[in-house]
Amino acid sequence: MRIVIVDDSGERADVLEEGLRDAGYDDIHVVPPRGGFVSRIERMAPDVVLMDLGNPSRDTLEEMLTVSRALARPIAMFVDQSDDAMIGAAIDAGVSAYVVDGLRRERVKPIIDLAVRRFNAFARMQAELHDARTQLADRKTIDRAKAILMASRGLTEPDAYAALRSAAMNQGKKIVEVAAALISASELLGGGA
Amino acid sequence: MRIVIVDDSGERADVLEEGLRDAGYDDIHVVPPRGGFVSRIERMAPDVVLMDLGNPSRDTLEEMLTVSRALARPIAMFVDQSDDAMIGAAIDAGVSAYVVDGLRRERVKPIIDLAVRRFNAFARMQAELHDARTQLADRKTIDRAKAILMASRGLTEPDAYAALRSAAMNQGKKIVEVAAALISASELLGGGA
Repeated sequence: MRIVIVDDSGERADVLEEGLRDAGYDDIHVVPPRGGFVSRIERMAPDVVLMDLGNPSRDTLEEMLTVSRALARPIAMFVDQSDDAMIGAAIDAGVSAYVVDGLRRERVKPIIDLAVRRFNAFARMQAELHDARTQLADRKTIDRAKAILMASRGLTEPDAYAALRSAAMNQGKKIVEVAAALISASELLGGGA
Repeated sequence: MRIVIVDDSGERADVLEEGLRDAGYDDIHVVPPRGGFVSRIERMAPDVVLMDLGNPSRDTLEEMLTVSRALARPIAMFVDQSDDAMIGAAIDAGVSAYVVDGLRRERVKPIIDLAVRRFNAFARMQAELHDARTQLADRKTIDRAKAILMASRGLTEPDAYAALRSAAMNQGKKIVEVAAALISASELLGGGA
């Protein structure tokens, strides 16, 4: 497991790194949060990112939360103090583990496990949501295209669907792509349905 | 905010309760995990539940995770030690904050904030997923009922939909309910579509 530690303070990064080595990890990289560090982390493709922020200013926290969103990796964030608004912002940004005043060597391993597990659970649910919404949108598009065919060519519903399906097969496309093209053409032509 | 502490050890419950009182909470109830305590907690309708498990046996943890699922409230769980399997089980059971070796008075407040925020974010996403899946299922049911009407009564698609809608209005039901009843009747009658 490759782990990136984002840290500006050598001393605190050491606590994290020692905790990780205790737990048997050795693919560990410390990256200071300066000059293009986000793309540098992306190139490293870490399995988990630890961000040690100490007592961040509001601006620093905001910046690191933007980084968290961009990375889309399991992230454990360590701060010394927090208020409710900062916690809310961290949750909204998808931070998998947000640890207030808990930077101790022996706590690092369970926090990493937790961040990875929580990230995966959340990503699974997001994928399910994306899938359900895509299916719904596709179905609406196909229904609209069928209605256009039924109205303009006097087809029955099964025949309209068969027409879309055979066009899709002929063009090597998905039915929903053919349906979307048909809707767009029909709008251009002023046909509508 | 009403807070229930599930704890068997007076000393550790005191740490949690002091942390809560420091943070300005006063609607706090300590419930020992014995005899019908789940329904007792449900009746209390707490805003957040803290479970202090110390070093739980596998059976105790399993039992408390079952309780967590049943409660469907923000839950922060405190344990002294954990392994990856226990963490995974806690995440799967929807525990909002799982704190390993971090039971300190001054950490209680941010952990509660975190549990409530995370619970709400997760509940929102679950509601969105439920909503998208219901819309999809409803649409499939309505489409199937329309197809039955189009085939059996030779209706156009808009007329089939209009027939479902007016039946729903007359019966004071939802269109999807009328559609489901039509499908079921059609199957009973051996009609099919």
